[in-house]
Amino acid sequence: MTEPGERAQIGLVLGVLGGTGAQGRGLARRFAMAGATVLLGSRDASRAAVVAAGIADTQGRVRGVTNAEAAGADVVFIAVPYEGHAALLTELSEALAGRIVVDCVNPLGFDKRGAFALDVPEGSAAEQAAALLPRSRVCAAFNHIGAQRLLVGHDDIVTDVLVVGDDLVAKDTVIALACAIPGLRGLDGGSLRLARHVEALTAVLIAVNKRYKTHAGMRLTDVDETRRTVDNSVDLIHPSMGDWS
Amino acid sequence: MTEPGERAQIGLVLGVLGGTGAQGRGLARRFAMAGATVLLGSRDASRAAVVAAGIADTQGRVRGVTNAEAAGADVVFIAVPYEGHAALLTELSEALAGRIVVDCVNPLGFDKRGAFALDVPEGSAAEQAAALLPRSRVCAAFNHIGAQRLLVGHDDIVTDVLVVGDDLVAKDTVIALACAIPGLRGLDGGSLRLARHVEALTAVLIAVNKRYKTHAGMRLTDVDETRRTVDNSVDLIHPSMGDWS
Repeated sequence: MTEPGERAQIGLVLGVLGGTGAQGRGLARRFAMAGATVLLGSRDASRAAVVAAGIADTQGRVRGVTNAEAAGADVVFIAVPYEGHAALLTELSEALAGRIVVDCVNPLGFDKRGAFALDVPEGSAAEQAAALLPRSRVCAAFNHIGAQRLLVGHDDIVTDVLVVGDDLVAKDTVIALACAIPGLRGLDGGSLRLARHVEALTAVLIAVNKRYKTHAGMRLTDVDETRRTVDNSVDLIHPSMGDWS
Repeated sequence: MTEPGERAQIGLVLGVLGGTGAQGRGLARRFAMAGATVLLGSRDASRAAVVAAGIADTQGRVRGVTNAEAAGADVVFIAVPYEGHAALLTELSEALAGRIVVDCVNPLGFDKRGAFALDVPEGSAAEQAAALLPRSRVCAAFNHIGAQRLLVGHDDIVTDVLVVGDDLVAKDTVIALACAIPGLRGLDGGSLRLARHVEALTAVLIAVNKRYKTHAGMRLTDVDETRRTVDNSVDLIHPSMGDWS
């Protein structure tokens, strides 16, 4: 999907479920800016096409499709409201079989005291996804980047992306994808059972943002990412799902 | 407790409950290095005295006392294992009345997959403290700094200290105390009900530390702390509990 002579930094096709929401549009924009082809999924493909065409700086790399079509991508990001999370994944479980699924959903409630984490029967949105998608390779990531930071501007987003999951190869792929967006650094945050804490931290960051009138990012200090071995060996250019099984 | 002509940066007397543990010794060391007088509490005052005398770089500012005596300080840090948390606070509830209580306890369990957050009936160690100490001014803070970083070295500790609590003046005092330790920056992380997420994040940081063989700190980016008003107005020199009620 890239112009002749233009080298895509990311050859994998990325899908976004719930892509017409602010977070989905923002992820699609930044990954398209990084050279990726993005299938922007929505219930209504024609609406998705309109929204995709309206996202700035994508050089035509974002295509509006149905959620089912977006689920056929190499790596599929879930960016739907938590309310629709379980129903959509149940509906798409077949299409998502074998895929790397990156759950970006934060189950949060809001009241006059601010944001708070909702109780999720499975422990977290990502664990709910793993329960509903037993044949998918589920990670949680991109929980802490506000949509505005993704949708606006061309400057680096100086923040770390905590990636949690139990499938190490899938996790390393998501870490490498995060690193493909200027400023972002993907870091291995541990096993999927820690997703609940990664998701819930968003409530704290929302409180910080309100108190300091900002959109805070997060950098872990004293972390030398080269002390992990496999993340630089991940191939983001050539889809190779077969090798990943 | 400071030498003639030596200006204490922190005039408040600080207490540490469970001060003979690694985290308690580390906090006592860094606060003493910052000029504070620290009452290092333990069940056994004679043992506390021996431990206090053995902490490096304190210039004699750390005194070993009983937990009950440490509870009489202006600001009291709780650094006991979670197992002994409720019993100790129940025992000291009278002595801690009116005090600023800083709960540093992370209720964590460990298994072969690493650290995980324990279920706390009150939601978090800090909320348990608030329930057991209805007349104290409870915050949670210093949950994410490993004892080794506190106990070893003289370089700045480059990390932010998230402080959560519902008593804004107490919270601002704790934020200012954190800022008194070189490298640390205290930040308002929101209300006490978010303490569970601040405490549980420690399990994620432990996973990061294991994966990257480090002791990671955390910096929130794009946060201009001057956008809060009161933190610089906090008086750390003159105890003034009366004004705080």
